Amino acid sequence: MLLKSKIQEIKLLLKNDNILTCEEECYCYAQDSSNLIKPKTNPDVVVFAETIEDVQNILKYANEHEIPVISRGAGTNMVGSCVCDEGGIVLNFSKMNKILEIDPVNMTAKVQPGVIVGNLKQEAEKSGLFFPPDPSNYAVSTVGGAIAQSSGGAMGFKYGTIKDYVLSLKVVTADGRLMTLGANTAKDSVGYHLAQLMVGSEGTLAVIVEATLKLLPKPETNCAISAYFDNLRIGMIAVNKIIGSKIFPAAIDFMDKNAIMTVEDYTKCGLRTDKDCMLLLTLDGYKSSMEYQLNSAVEVLKNSGATDIKVSDEEGAQNIWKARRVAFAATARLAPDVVTDDIIVPRENLPDIAEQCRKIAEKYNLKMCLVGHAGDGNLHPQIAVNLENEEEFKNCMEAKAEIYKATIELGGTISAEHGVGLEKKAYVKDTVDKNAIEYMKMIKNIFDSKNILNPNKIF
Amino acid sequence: MLLKSKIQEIKLLLKNDNILTCEEECYCYAQDSSNLIKPKTNPDVVVFAETIEDVQNILKYANEHEIPVISRGAGTNMVGSCVCDEGGIVLNFSKMNKILEIDPVNMTAKVQPGVIVGNLKQEAEKSGLFFPPDPSNYAVSTVGGAIAQSSGGAMGFKYGTIKDYVLSLKVVTADGRLMTLGANTAKDSVGYHLAQLMVGSEGTLAVIVEATLKLLPKPETNCAISAYFDNLRIGMIAVNKIIGSKIFPAAIDFMDKNAIMTVEDYTKCGLRTDKDCMLLLTLDGYKSSMEYQLNSAVEVLKNSGATDIKVSDEEGAQNIWKARRVAFAATARLAPDVVTDDIIVPRENLPDIAEQCRKIAEKYNLKMCLVGHAGDGNLHPQIAVNLENEEEFKNCMEAKAEIYKATIELGGTISAEHGVGLEKKAYVKDTVDKNAIEYMKMIKNIFDSKNILNPNKIF
Repeated sequence: MLLKSKIQEIKLLLKNDNILTCEEECYCYAQDSSNLIKPKTNPDVVVFAETIEDVQNILKYANEHEIPVISRGAGTNMVGSCVCDEGGIVLNFSKMNKILEIDPVNMTAKVQPGVIVGNLKQEAEKSGLFFPPDPSNYAVSTVGGAIAQSSGGAMGFKYGTIKDYVLSLKVVTADGRLMTLGANTAKDSVGYHLAQLMVGSEGTLAVIVEATLKLLPKPETNCAISAYFDNLRIGMIAVNKIIGSKIFPAAIDFMDKNAIMTVEDYTKCGLRTDKDCMLLLTLDGYKSSMEYQLNSAVEVLKNSGATDIKVSDEEGAQNIWKARRVAFAATARLAPDVVTDDIIVPRENLPDIAEQCRKIAEKYNLKMCLVGHAGDGNLHPQIAVNLENEEEFKNCMEAKAEIYKATIELGGTISAEHGVGLEKKAYVKDTVDKNAIEYMKMIKNIFDSKNILNPNKIF
Repeated sequence: MLLKSKIQEIKLLLKNDNILTCEEECYCYAQDSSNLIKPKTNPDVVVFAETIEDVQNILKYANEHEIPVISRGAGTNMVGSCVCDEGGIVLNFSKMNKILEIDPVNMTAKVQPGVIVGNLKQEAEKSGLFFPPDPSNYAVSTVGGAIAQSSGGAMGFKYGTIKDYVLSLKVVTADGRLMTLGANTAKDSVGYHLAQLMVGSEGTLAVIVEATLKLLPKPETNCAISAYFDNLRIGMIAVNKIIGSKIFPAAIDFMDKNAIMTVEDYTKCGLRTDKDCMLLLTLDGYKSSMEYQLNSAVEVLKNSGATDIKVSDEEGAQNIWKARRVAFAATARLAPDVVTDDIIVPRENLPDIAEQCRKIAEKYNLKMCLVGHAGDGNLHPQIAVNLENEEEFKNCMEAKAEIYKATIELGGTISAEHGVGLEKKAYVKDTVDKNAIEYMKMIKNIFDSKNILNPNKIF
């Protein structure tokens, strides 16, 4: 626990007096969206940085005094990356939330780390541009957090993840130096790609204080197809048939029966609860291509065993995606807690991993809603559970471990777009090469030799 | 220089006796495609690795005995990344040239590092898939080299560079350990992105021995538009107007008058040598969208001052791109040497940098052909010169330095897709943050503490 005198000194480091110190207030910033990981303690202080200098001053001080610093966007990550387990400073970026520039000629956006992903998407669209990354929580999650966690989203199938959109970053090092990584140009091959090294580093290497991101021209239009299947496996096989067809959807997502029922119960948006699986496709591009894309996709779906297919225009597509995106919130109504996971396998093993997830849930008597970015082979099993019930907690933990085991046996890995945080660190060794882990730790050490940046996360 | 006894020992490390030791033979592997950088010496031996174990054995031995190792694909890089400047071992990958797998469901390719980029592109197409990276020399350059140099190509405008296609790498560390980085899945957020750190590291951190690459569904069709302008600046402004239009070309390249004349003289393919600039667009996608894309592009080009516009179908497009791709070879006929550069600016500054390149060439009385991936703001000034003529050499070097200066002043950087090698290392400090350079050097040191991997390159 920090001494009062230190807290007083920290206050003086900031441009404004943007700091919380009372226990009740600090408590609100001890946790993130990972229900499984409970904070061991509260942060000693929560600092709201307003300027890059604020961040530099805080880090310089923290490094000198070896105080842990947890950078925090909206705290929406699912793996305990922002969970506080040894006090220290939470460095909150909610006040560094300005879109500094949308440049339509260079097709770039320059943003502060606390910008909400959804706001950036909207602002880009106003200039006829498109920022594809769309984590389900984009209405609240921040760009800095999305970069730190290597976020993806449904559009990842066609458009990749946020790593593909990071051109350059300004970061503050553990000892308070400001450093620019990468270049504000479409390409860059001068030296090592340190900006890419920051993506997914979960605030453990340096603190992101500004990002220049690549934007794309906005596709002229899009539409959605929802297709129901009487059997989950058949639906998952259909995903691979779509991939083998001549079209390139922007997104191929799915919900299983439990997810459909849970979402329908919450939203009453007319999903078919009698079906075992729904695929949700977005097709985008030029208007003139849409009829061909739709016809091709519908034909593949029909031939793959879909028993009900519905095409929605751009507005309808928004509604149906809204339904998919509330799956987490809807599942949260089933039990006191939801434990969301994030696994990925090579696409061909999607039918197997989906079935195995269900079997594991059944074995442990857990209520699981299965959703995910099927086109990427990326599943988000969502377990509704009462974690305060000892047996349910134990079952949940064992189920997760079995899901990881199955994932790895099927050639996959334990995190596609959520990161590692505290929740998955015990499993990193099962999926990452031991030599690679050794190099990662050495890299951590050169960037943060005093281990003040989000300590205990990932490794 | 290595002792004969060591050379004998190196021979014994290999599965087969794939080694060149005589000076005349070694001489052939001392140089790459950077005319400006001359080898200080020959390699002592050239080893043709056939297996991963070969590479491990060589590196283990080299590390123990502190012998420099230069990994080499086709030696087509333009910056001296494969130039030999202190002897040692050239580790040649031309025999590790197998495409191990094209997986149409997972949309991945697993390849050995010596696979020719063009062969991979062809094999992917046979499965209805698409490997977008297309460095101009893809008919000879290798995948390993393309990853090491962070290569791009014309399709970069829509499809990004090779970094966007690297899912996982097998690398051998300086001390001979085999290490897998990344995952064979569409996404991965477990730990630091070390595979991305290898991209563009020019063989200085580890040696790539296998790559799993992302493939895309092949676009249904493509076509090309060539558009001539009476004035280079107007052509470059047109590029930005195209970007601001509603279409998203796959590629927007250009050639200036000198390049057009030089290529036409070489190929007799009917280019208009009376014009000051030609833009070359590829449009791709669904057949049903092509008319709209073409009409939109042609309209923008007309309104932007194009004085001659020609549309080519898929076959015609191939021919016109062939003309663009031979620009280097064509320029090579003008003088004993061609010095090709690779600079990039934010797109809006394209007109300025193009004009400045011309002015600088004029100032130093140099014959320069200007080509490049205009859509990315990426120029390849090609200077035809006799480097043995002392004055021409001096002028060429000064012109390059001035081009870099102008590039950096316009917000750009000194290498977009060629790398740094020996040729540009003196300029890295002008464009990369000094703190970032420090971290890069520390990273180099943890991966290669004895500095045996391609020493003296980049830094």
